[in-house]
Amino acid sequence: MYLAKITIILRKSILDIQGKAVHHALNSLHMNLVEEVRIGKFIEMKINTGDQEEAVRITNEACKKLLANPVMEDFSFTVEKISEGFGI
Amino acid sequence: MYLAKITIILRKSILDIQGKAVHHALNSLHMNLVEEVRIGKFIEMKINTGDQEEAVRITNEACKKLLANPVMEDFSFTVEKISEGFGI
Repeated sequence: MYLAKITIILRKSILDIQGKAVHHALNSLHMNLVEEVRIGKFIEMKINTGDQEEAVRITNEACKKLLANPVMEDFSFTVEKISEGFGI
Repeated sequence: MYLAKITIILRKSILDIQGKAVHHALNSLHMNLVEEVRIGKFIEMKINTGDQEEAVRITNEACKKLLANPVMEDFSFTVEKISEGFGI
C-alpha cells in the first residue's frame, strides 16, 4: 500500500484571486509581514499496490487525467509506503 | 524572506465528500487500485522577515486565526528561507 501526497497550485503567471483575498484578510488581522499568498489543492490518495513504480505511474496519470488542469496548474507529488491498516 | 508551505486537511473522523467523488471518478477512469482519496488545501505564503522563529509564529497564527477550521481540519506546515527576489 502506498500513500501519494499531491500538491496542485496555479501557475505563477496566473492571477490567484483567492490568494489575494486571503492576503488582504491577513493584513486586516495585522499580519503585515505576509507579502504574497497562493492557494492550491492538497490531495492524499491511498493506492493498493506493492510496487512503488506503479504507485508513481497511477498518481501521475490521475493528476494528468483528472486532478490538475494542465493549462493553468502545476502539480507535484511524493509516494511513500504505508502499512495495510493505515488510515489516511 | 521565508516561504511557508501549509497543508490543511479534514480530520479523519469527518466524511470527505469531495474526496469520495474524486475516488469514484478515478474508478470510472479504470484506476481501480486507488482506495481512498482525501482533499484539502495547500497554501504558500511569502513572509518578509529574516527570523525563522517569527516566520513560524506568523504561519501558525495565520492557520489558527484564518486559514484552518480548528474543529474540522488539521494543519501542518514548513518554512524555508528564500532569496529576496524569489517569486512564489
